[in-house]
Amino acid sequence: MKFMRIGEVGAERAVVEIDGRTFAVEAEIDGAFLDSDGIARTRQAVADGSLTEIDISDQRVGAPLARPGKIVCVGLNYRDHADETGAQYPAEPVLFMKDPSTVVGPFDDVLIPRTSVKTDWEVELGVVIGSTARYVSSPADAMAHVAGYVVSHDVSEREFQLERSGQWDKGKSCETFNPMGPWFVPASEVAEPGALGLRLWVNGALMQDGSTKNLIFDIPFLVYYISQFMVLRPGDVINTGTPAGVALGHPDPKPYLREGDVVELEIDGLGRSRQEMVQA
Amino acid sequence: MKFMRIGEVGAERAVVEIDGRTFAVEAEIDGAFLDSDGIARTRQAVADGSLTEIDISDQRVGAPLARPGKIVCVGLNYRDHADETGAQYPAEPVLFMKDPSTVVGPFDDVLIPRTSVKTDWEVELGVVIGSTARYVSSPADAMAHVAGYVVSHDVSEREFQLERSGQWDKGKSCETFNPMGPWFVPASEVAEPGALGLRLWVNGALMQDGSTKNLIFDIPFLVYYISQFMVLRPGDVINTGTPAGVALGHPDPKPYLREGDVVELEIDGLGRSRQEMVQA
Repeated sequence: MKFMRIGEVGAERAVVEIDGRTFAVEAEIDGAFLDSDGIARTRQAVADGSLTEIDISDQRVGAPLARPGKIVCVGLNYRDHADETGAQYPAEPVLFMKDPSTVVGPFDDVLIPRTSVKTDWEVELGVVIGSTARYVSSPADAMAHVAGYVVSHDVSEREFQLERSGQWDKGKSCETFNPMGPWFVPASEVAEPGALGLRLWVNGALMQDGSTKNLIFDIPFLVYYISQFMVLRPGDVINTGTPAGVALGHPDPKPYLREGDVVELEIDGLGRSRQEMVQA
Repeated sequence: MKFMRIGEVGAERAVVEIDGRTFAVEAEIDGAFLDSDGIARTRQAVADGSLTEIDISDQRVGAPLARPGKIVCVGLNYRDHADETGAQYPAEPVLFMKDPSTVVGPFDDVLIPRTSVKTDWEVELGVVIGSTARYVSSPADAMAHVAGYVVSHDVSEREFQLERSGQWDKGKSCETFNPMGPWFVPASEVAEPGALGLRLWVNGALMQDGSTKNLIFDIPFLVYYISQFMVLRPGDVINTGTPAGVALGHPDPKPYLREGDVVELEIDGLGRSRQEMVQA
């Protein structure tokens, strides 16, 4: 069972795919939906035969979530990625934020910012919050707040992030910098979120090939930890960090993205996305 | 002319105050309102006598904006504040973000986070965006995108911000950490946004007494600059930085906020707010 949002930008309609059949969902896939047992209600409606089957071929695929309230990102959270950037493993999670309006569909173009010379890729497991998490008492209690997962592309401009007067957000929030999807997969459908393979290709060459097994801070700990500092609300997304293989980790000259480059991303069980780079 | 939102949390209704009289506004004060000439339409409706006059005494005052899409904050942007923290003047604006769900009303309680020992105050001029700003071509063109101004309290937890594994956002996004208001004042009503006095008191003692004259990067430059890195959308807010006088700038023992402390903030022409500190 997986959710998608299909249609032109700003006019997407939700669908659910189950056992190879696709049905229209008469609701937005957002925080209110997740917080009101929308997943369970949809599952029941499919079982009842009360949803209309539809054909979505040849239609644009949008981001599988509408309007995240915020996107919290975790930096340097894979052992292999920390190693390649020369950074020490952080003592506790490094958090930063991304403008939630950067979310675009999984096959939409990514805009290279006008003055960018260091646009980089990052495949990440996106954790979608399903219920309000505030001072969660332990990692063991955290997963009850997770609604599901998405493939998230945390596109990053390294000069903006690292060389332009402090704080990473500046290189993380450029327009179109968070392609998401194609699917939102409910947590109940993902048996081992701590053992998912993540892969990313640039122009067909495999650049990242990691596993959430290599997370320094795992998903239960991240939800628990973040909730000590801020309230995680339904529909919020946590980008959990990227494994080794980004352009920044290469020897000079680093292979930063250029107009016309094509990036493809995939996470086990969460689908595959593809974006072409276009100059802003 | 100034806008407010009145009523209980989550059920606020917009009003406009003009020449000492208060009228109900049948719209939310949000990005869509600002982007569709809501201010001008309201002014016309008042002139036409088509709005209903109402009494708002004894009602809660909410934040004057509903649902900012994002809050972009500028760090170290007053000469006197950079001096007190021992920081060099930044070569270009330092940007970070605050969870937009931290916005609360101007007289609501502020929650001191459970493990906090360094909760600090920051009075700031909040700039409200009225139309989409993307690669604005010069500071001279920037002010056309500014809808108006608010008093914004950028509450900050200094240990979370500075001592807990990098990136300031961690100390800026705790629940209730952005009291806003009482008023949203349209830009047309603020003659000199670059020469506004800002003041903040803790338990009646004046702690900050600055002026936007001391901004390192002024408002037109900030809007121009930020639009090179991200899209500013209607309803977004820029917290433009804080003048000298925060607890962090005091000699030890620094007077961080404790339960029961009362903070009052005021900016010339934008009203006065007051929050009591309560332990989360």
